Amino acid sequence: MIQTPYLLFLGDAPDQLAAKVARGIADWRPENSVGQFRMEGCGADVGLPDMTLEEGLAAGAKTLVIGVANRGGVISDAWKEILVKALQLGYDIASGLHNLLRDEDELMAAARVNGRTLFDVRIPSVAYPIANGKKRTGKRCLAVGTDCSVGKMYTGLCMDAEMRKRGMKSTFRPTGQTGILITGGGVPLDAVVADFMAGSVEYLTPDNDADHWDHIEGQGSLFHVSYSGVTMALIHGGQPDAIVLAHEPTRDHMRGLPEYQQPTLEELRDMALPLARVANPACQVIGVSVNTQHMGEDEAKAYLANIESRMGLPATDPYRFGAEKLVDALEAL
Amino acid sequence: MIQTPYLLFLGDAPDQLAAKVARGIADWRPENSVGQFRMEGCGADVGLPDMTLEEGLAAGAKTLVIGVANRGGVISDAWKEILVKALQLGYDIASGLHNLLRDEDELMAAARVNGRTLFDVRIPSVAYPIANGKKRTGKRCLAVGTDCSVGKMYTGLCMDAEMRKRGMKSTFRPTGQTGILITGGGVPLDAVVADFMAGSVEYLTPDNDADHWDHIEGQGSLFHVSYSGVTMALIHGGQPDAIVLAHEPTRDHMRGLPEYQQPTLEELRDMALPLARVANPACQVIGVSVNTQHMGEDEAKAYLANIESRMGLPATDPYRFGAEKLVDALEAL
Repeated sequence: MIQTPYLLFLGDAPDQLAAKVARGIADWRPENSVGQFRMEGCGADVGLPDMTLEEGLAAGAKTLVIGVANRGGVISDAWKEILVKALQLGYDIASGLHNLLRDEDELMAAARVNGRTLFDVRIPSVAYPIANGKKRTGKRCLAVGTDCSVGKMYTGLCMDAEMRKRGMKSTFRPTGQTGILITGGGVPLDAVVADFMAGSVEYLTPDNDADHWDHIEGQGSLFHVSYSGVTMALIHGGQPDAIVLAHEPTRDHMRGLPEYQQPTLEELRDMALPLARVANPACQVIGVSVNTQHMGEDEAKAYLANIESRMGLPATDPYRFGAEKLVDALEAL
Repeated sequence: MIQTPYLLFLGDAPDQLAAKVARGIADWRPENSVGQFRMEGCGADVGLPDMTLEEGLAAGAKTLVIGVANRGGVISDAWKEILVKALQLGYDIASGLHNLLRDEDELMAAARVNGRTLFDVRIPSVAYPIANGKKRTGKRCLAVGTDCSVGKMYTGLCMDAEMRKRGMKSTFRPTGQTGILITGGGVPLDAVVADFMAGSVEYLTPDNDADHWDHIEGQGSLFHVSYSGVTMALIHGGQPDAIVLAHEPTRDHMRGLPEYQQPTLEELRDMALPLARVANPACQVIGVSVNTQHMGEDEAKAYLANIESRMGLPATDPYRFGAEKLVDALEAL
């Protein structure tokens, strides 16, 4: 588990997009970050107080989180100098970069000398068990998508936030790098060895209070041939009580697969539900989450209304219009 | 690729069962082995000529294959002495043991000094790509099971043997350790990292002649919550033209999951086919393979006849009664 609160390292991010991970952390867990650290010429700003490494420590920060993509996949000397200093001052460092902190000799040496930890969240740090399929206490909700990158993580985060606002017991359970850095823990599912995928999801969502909801971050799609095995492991390892169908309506084809068309929401429902009921016969599809970012407001609302009348399920863009309908549906279960 | 022919190392196997892997190689690819090497007191015999290491070499053997489980998961000193000598004489060594050859310092040193290779087939040796889902030339057949360990490998091997007997173009494509040692190559799918599972199956079954059939070794089951993600990756990475349903009718529950019942063959068909058609819209379920080893002959034949009349599909135990019906169905496609 990565220790919070964080100081967010924005480095020399050329623009806001490069600091997407830091933005996610600041948007979704503002209480987890004391401030941001920006190098000269940084073009990103996530709206937190600017701090030096020393100021961050004084404000209580335990971990420096690299919330920015590095240019060309290389950890530059300018970055390294700052990261080594952070380790010397007493920070741990956490990163979701493709190239690993642990592969940098200077960082490893500085961490060792100063007794600090480097967290490469792309790599599993736990020897996960093989799934045993046993029924667990507590409730679980999983977003399954018509495609990859349609808003499954945001759906889970929005529903979790709405539940906590209502005073309900709720936890967001990350299965990808950004989600892990947002909350400080989780399973980097796409890097888990095949035999242990479903077991890692069981590990992530253990027994809990009967009225507690886990919102499990979805991955891939049953209709995306590159990653459908990962989705399958989430459905069977997560044994969800509730499924939310997630969709992005403006795509021409499946992400990265020009020969493949997106399925309809009905096709997704009819594929996902029987599979989910293998692990949890009580599983229900409770609603639809649509990523409407490429639609005007009227168009988006008409689109959602059409789904509701067609499918008899509540439909919303939880990030744009709120997750109330979806949480109402969970409460009604 | 592991070089053939092999000398099969049976070691000090206490009984036939302990030498199951060697038995599989001798049964399915007798042309790949020049003989067997047995230590004093060995209780197994796969029916090949007994040879010393030197005799094996003289007969053309390139690789010593460890075809026996080791007691207590430890490579004993008695084994090590023989394996080191084999490396010195010029053998490569291949093993599907859980504990790895490469973790034994003496073996690594002997391999290095003598320029030989240690093959631990439980561990992937290739950096597999992410699946691209593109249609490949040639035909592919995949056995999908109601459960794990119901005879999917034997189904593929039987169909491949029958096709080759008929002079058809056919290759068995292993996805597990035993299959890899039988043929000398393949993908240890259960040890592949999640994101690359489907890509590894594409890699295993590349473009081929239009009238060539790959028989892809199945793994797990869509109904086995521990391993269903692996099965899913086979269905989408393999993009099969033909599916054989595989079943073992005498089980009380899913293997290792006492809370889970086996599905019916009809339930398996209805789950697998729509998923397979995502990757290959032309996919057909062409027959049923039943592992009848725990049934009397009359009982088995009645069981198969019942499936045929119920489902309108050819049904056989290909190991007991031959794979002709299944291959006929592929030819008729």
